[in-house]
Amino acid sequence: MDAGSFNGITKQGHLEQSNLSALLMIFTGSHILSVSQFDRASIDTIFDVADNMQPYANRQKMTRVLEGAILGSMFFEPSTRTRVSFGSAFNLLGGEVRETTEIKASAIAKGESFYDTARVLSGYSDIIVMRHAIEGSVQEFSEASRVPVLNGGDGSNEHPSQALLDLYTIRKELSAQGKTIDNMHIALIGDLRYGRAVHSLCKLLKLYNNVQMSLISPPELSLPESYISSIESAGHAVLETEDLQNGVKGADILYLTRIQEERFPSQGEADKYKGIFRLNHSIYTEFCEPNTVIMHPLPRDSRGNANELDNDLNENPNLAIFRQTDNGVVIRMALFALILDVVDLVDKYARGVNWYTAKRF
Amino acid sequence: MDAGSFNGITKQGHLEQSNLSALLMIFTGSHILSVSQFDRASIDTIFDVADNMQPYANRQKMTRVLEGAILGSMFFEPSTRTRVSFGSAFNLLGGEVRETTEIKASAIAKGESFYDTARVLSGYSDIIVMRHAIEGSVQEFSEASRVPVLNGGDGSNEHPSQALLDLYTIRKELSAQGKTIDNMHIALIGDLRYGRAVHSLCKLLKLYNNVQMSLISPPELSLPESYISSIESAGHAVLETEDLQNGVKGADILYLTRIQEERFPSQGEADKYKGIFRLNHSIYTEFCEPNTVIMHPLPRDSRGNANELDNDLNENPNLAIFRQTDNGVVIRMALFALILDVVDLVDKYARGVNWYTAKRF
Amino acid sequence: MDAGSFNGITKQGHLEQSNLSALLMIFTGSHILSVSQFDRASIDTIFDVADNMQPYANRQKMTRVLEGAILGSMFFEPSTRTRVSFGSAFNLLGGEVRETTEIKASAIAKGESFYDTARVLSGYSDIIVMRHAIEGSVQEFSEASRVPVLNGGDGSNEHPSQALLDLYTIRKELSAQGKTIDNMHIALIGDLRYGRAVHSLCKLLKLYNNVQMSLISPPELSLPESYISSIESAGHAVLETEDLQNGVKGADILYLTRIQEERFPSQGEADKYKGIFRLNHSIYTEFCEPNTVIMHPLPRDSRGNANELDNDLNENPNLAIFRQTDNGVVIRMALFALILDVVDLVDKYARGVNWYTAKRF
Repeated sequence: MDAGSFNGITKQGHLEQSNLSALLMIFTGSHILSVSQFDRASIDTIFDVADNMQPYANRQKMTRVLEGAILGSMFFEPSTRTRVSFGSAFNLLGGEVRETTEIKASAIAKGESFYDTARVLSGYSDIIVMRHAIEGSVQEFSEASRVPVLNGGDGSNEHPSQALLDLYTIRKELSAQGKTIDNMHIALIGDLRYGRAVHSLCKLLKLYNNVQMSLISPPELSLPESYISSIESAGHAVLETEDLQNGVKGADILYLTRIQEERFPSQGEADKYKGIFRLNHSIYTEFCEPNTVIMHPLPRDSRGNANELDNDLNENPNLAIFRQTDNGVVIRMALFALILDVVDLVDKYARGVNWYTAKRF
Repeated sequence: MDAGSFNGITKQGHLEQSNLSALLMIFTGSHILSVSQFDRASIDTIFDVADNMQPYANRQKMTRVLEGAILGSMFFEPSTRTRVSFGSAFNLLGGEVRETTEIKASAIAKGESFYDTARVLSGYSDIIVMRHAIEGSVQEFSEASRVPVLNGGDGSNEHPSQALLDLYTIRKELSAQGKTIDNMHIALIGDLRYGRAVHSLCKLLKLYNNVQMSLISPPELSLPESYISSIESAGHAVLETEDLQNGVKGADILYLTRIQEERFPSQGEADKYKGIFRLNHSIYTEFCEPNTVIMHPLPRDSRGNANELDNDLNENPNLAIFRQTDNGVVIRMALFALILDVVDLVDKYARGVNWYTAKRF
Repeated sequence: MDAGSFNGITKQGHLEQSNLSALLMIFTGSHILSVSQFDRASIDTIFDVADNMQPYANRQKMTRVLEGAILGSMFFEPSTRTRVSFGSAFNLLGGEVRETTEIKASAIAKGESFYDTARVLSGYSDIIVMRHAIEGSVQEFSEASRVPVLNGGDGSNEHPSQALLDLYTIRKELSAQGKTIDNMHIALIGDLRYGRAVHSLCKLLKLYNNVQMSLISPPELSLPESYISSIESAGHAVLETEDLQNGVKGADILYLTRIQEERFPSQGEADKYKGIFRLNHSIYTEFCEPNTVIMHPLPRDSRGNANELDNDLNENPNLAIFRQTDNGVVIRMALFALILDVVDLVDKYARGVNWYTAKRF
């Protein structure tokens, strides 16, 4: 699949049925490497399919549509939540997972090319999700793979399923308030310079209309200029500030990220901002709207010297961070179903759930 | 589930059907964190369900009752036998397992709270088994988890499924000889001071009547006084001794544990006991009853300087150590079936086994 | 199973139906520890069953014959491709896999004997594949195991499924050209002294007739004399040479292996052979037959100083190295089906595949 394959249709909202069929043909057998592959129509398709996955993820029913299929889960860089989320999503569709979680003793470490690794491993499964520390590694791997490859994170480059679950969460949280991504006000807070999740989210937001963005960060960690100009070219309003309290005012969505002290040129620089970009109950109550949604790509550092999102907000119903990780499961189910072309069969292979299910969601 | 939830009924043996239903309701959706949660009736329930799991574990038939369910196996401390035993037990019920076997690169290591980890991971599975080196960690995790959590070992604190499989093995071995846990004579041998398995077993034995306990250990590794007084308060007879040969006389059950030299204040102290607490064929033959059952929580150290249970007993039919690990599978199947409330459905989803099955048991 | 159990019938080609039944009885429940267990008839059986597995591996259909069965995958030495290949093969037959991929924290590392480890772990699964760095470890393990054990590699000793997939690849590639293993000309190239794969292949080739073998290596890495005399005793013609270009002439099969510089007594010795045993497009074109098949047990080292099989041959249709790893899946499926005695049931449990399948093969 070339990276431009989804770019025929832009900013036109939900698809007509005939277009949907055409688009499903594009997903079928495709690699998912970058958020740049998506236009607004393809994103809507993914989100609609994800909506249909909710009853399966919530255990109101289950499906065996992918019974017999094998996911090759190749995490050449460690990960717990992304790896388990992909694996569980595949299990929820009825498929099996063969997992690799180390690189040190792998053939890649012994000088094997990504080409060879991909040719070999793609003979062992129907679809592969891969994480690797090297930027571009997953794309190189995908070019030699004989089965579709999903990028589970390639260094500082891309992590497309994270960006999709973030955007899906925004859509869902806003929708419950009668709002849309178009015309929303979002505040991005923290490390906007190095955060892969923030960058991918900015790329996706360019596909929408009239978004108001507050960028709240220390100047050392501000969003790169190229992203800002690109967002402004898409017609969005951008406000940059170092002032958390004023920056969050009026926002529909807060998207917080971790600030790592080692990102600063010196400890002195880092100390200047200690505690300044931390959201807690009192700031939220005083400066945010009553139903401003709080998001974070997680993990958050709950130790005293980090604590960018205080635990005193844990009981706030607008804290969407765990709904956000839950949404990762249905987004990944949707990607698997679309790529393996079983969207129309999921319900056909549905059954009831006969074991105790917690009210988790 | 609060730790006292099983304590309504004590020391009354097998349940009436009406009580069974009531108790099943208590298991459903519960966490299993500590042996202190169990009374005698709940233990009998677990053991009765475990008995019904034997034909599935023995491969006389198989069941798909949990087809579609997912176990999150979170071993933040390494383990082979406990991890595989839990995983196989879930597979034997038809479910899938998503496994994590490392902590070093996990979010917990990056400062994520158990609260966050639990909120996130409990969105990926129907039930979780967790091991972690920190005492109390599994309970803390369970309080934030949205699905039931089983303690697979939290440091020196608890390992409830080990205690249950030990007690189940005692019951089964004695039952084959027409004896019961009530009125038995058990000898606990080796490191009684630090052994988690021994401590949990002592807690469970308090629920039974008229047990005679011989505690055989070097004084540095003797059972803590609090356990002894608690056992005596339950009406049991306790004999403490350093003399293995006399201590084992008349015992129905020998429960051996590993003595680690580093437990002693000095090498000189350790050397004093070298070889004194080792059971072998000649000691067994001279001092034990003809059918005294030999147990050990495993692994045993088969190197010359350890060797607390000699390989020359490997062919002795009273050596129950591998029946003991086998029993771990059915005990864990029983816990899964009770917590997920499928006890009554296991047989409904049964099928024949069509592949070669070794006569393993 | 004793190592001679397959040796009743030799060099007689395909089996009569009545003999097939007899042989299946021998596979059922057996351990697979060494290529020395096989005679020509048993190899033909494995290969015929592997042929029948192709449509399942190619995803033209799927089977659930081993639904409910559990493979214990015990890789006490790291491996990606062998481990995943065995696991996927078991999944393709419908079974589950419980995996262990580390040794450092295992009971073996704490002094547990292979006997104990095997007794315990064999209570958790229906069949075990094991890799361990120590020669003979898998056999020792198998002697105490209560379920069949497949050797997934025990140090420098044996890796029988690799040898079988190599020989199966040779048979299949030659068959497409109207040739047979009998009367073929094969060139073994590179490190013939230490390569486990080469040694096992030589053992298997002794079962065939009139093979012409060119052994191309630096003298320091030549095939041990015992192998050469044994091959010659079997009636095969052997040519030893250091000259790659002349050595490959007329060969039907090239079997390349990696030369590791550290194998030489000194760097000076290693430098003498730099680049001499590397196959590339120009050498292939000038010195090989038009359809000489290129094989390699993989991984190949694609870094500049290794590069024993140049990437400029990647598009050559005679490059069989990825068909070779693909064949590993069907060979392992065949071994599982034979040992678990479900060969006749595989098709009975077949179904269609309803998801997108890449044209991988």
